[in-house]
Amino acid sequence: MNNFAPLKNIRVVLCETSHPGNIGAAARALKTMGLSQLYLVSPQRFPDPEAAWRASRADDVLAAAKVCDSLDEALAGAAFSVACSARSREVAVPEVTVREAAAQLIEVARTQAVAVVFGNETYGLTTAEVNKCRLIATIPANPRYSSLNVAAAVQVFAYELRMAAGGQVPRGEPRVMAGHEEVESFYAHLEQTMVETGFLNPEHPKKLMPRLRRLFARAQLEKEEVNILRGILKALGKPKNRD
Amino acid sequence: MNNFAPLKNIRVVLCETSHPGNIGAAARALKTMGLSQLYLVSPQRFPDPEAAWRASRADDVLAAAKVCDSLDEALAGAAFSVACSARSREVAVPEVTVREAAAQLIEVARTQAVAVVFGNETYGLTTAEVNKCRLIATIPANPRYSSLNVAAAVQVFAYELRMAAGGQVPRGEPRVMAGHEEVESFYAHLEQTMVETGFLNPEHPKKLMPRLRRLFARAQLEKEEVNILRGILKALGKPKNRD
Repeated sequence: MNNFAPLKNIRVVLCETSHPGNIGAAARALKTMGLSQLYLVSPQRFPDPEAAWRASRADDVLAAAKVCDSLDEALAGAAFSVACSARSREVAVPEVTVREAAAQLIEVARTQAVAVVFGNETYGLTTAEVNKCRLIATIPANPRYSSLNVAAAVQVFAYELRMAAGGQVPRGEPRVMAGHEEVESFYAHLEQTMVETGFLNPEHPKKLMPRLRRLFARAQLEKEEVNILRGILKALGKPKNRD
Repeated sequence: MNNFAPLKNIRVVLCETSHPGNIGAAARALKTMGLSQLYLVSPQRFPDPEAAWRASRADDVLAAAKVCDSLDEALAGAAFSVACSARSREVAVPEVTVREAAAQLIEVARTQAVAVVFGNETYGLTTAEVNKCRLIATIPANPRYSSLNVAAAVQVFAYELRMAAGGQVPRGEPRVMAGHEEVESFYAHLEQTMVETGFLNPEHPKKLMPRLRRLFARAQLEKEEVNILRGILKALGKPKNRD
């Protein structure tokens, strides 16, 4: 099974959004993370050119958005739901971080529909809305200013969902690492060159070679890089032309 | 020490941003996660009412933003820098996820200034800009549409920085990283030495310097290591005694 298949089972619900720009930006945030289901409960202005502009090339997600009259309608058929909230609150629902919530959502979404719910820009989710969900997720934030823009919160949540599903960066070509003997020969060449130029006194070597070994060990030298470095040492070791 | 103190040592650099709304949204994203240093390299429109509107109550971060003429100016004094890029690319800099990059940034930011760099909305960062950084961070994304809005990318990165700061216990001695100018001077010294010995033909430089930059970027050079390397170059560059 494709690691990212559960993302198709996740709907993102925006309640009573005031600014159409935020709806467009949320659509874009979903698509960048491989989500596609956007539900809008009583948006104040939608559709709107500002939403289309901010959606950029996520116009397909925006066009497919479902407009609902109530949160109940948006949650119909969902097997699990999470309310995203900036603040801790006195409600009948357990609270976790967005990272923990994402892991739980992905687990359920392997087989069933799930939802993440976001509130209005100014007053967030009402207590009644939060109580319709199974879990509250908070995004850890600056206690003096924890008010993320709603589309920014959707982006963070969608990112954590993708990470939980198994989001790894594809890493191009595998690196061809230098072999043990090649690296040791390079160190010997480097040391010899330093001795010849007087930079390293073999009677008092101090910590010079161990330090250089540590530096190059961190770099995890590739085969071709060792060849380049030895080429440089060889060129430097040659007598110069004196005109 | 306060876990979140390193966040004060992190500057976020936006290069050639087109839309002032994104600058404002980035300021808000920083403040929600406890960051405060915003640097703007040649913004197209700034200051601007749209920036102020999107910043919301992060107007203090926006007012303190530093406008710079070049990326070098924005990175001056930074001991470590990370380029944020949507795509894998052929550059002289190692690549990690934003989560890994955040952990490394927090580690260095306990004692020194560090930077995270974001590109223009349309064309991202140039290769020359990426090559001035020590690491590339990519945000895992939908391969069919990986184009996060720049302020959304800043939000995700700032969130991971806060998560990394909050979850960590400082380990052992902090490393004293080489500053941006020191590393660039070392590269210049290395290149000049290679040209003088004939190893590098300035008419046909091929990929030699980018390869060497990539190698040393992976090593994340410390201040003292740069001093050693330059000492070696200096010793090798001297005329030899011929007995």
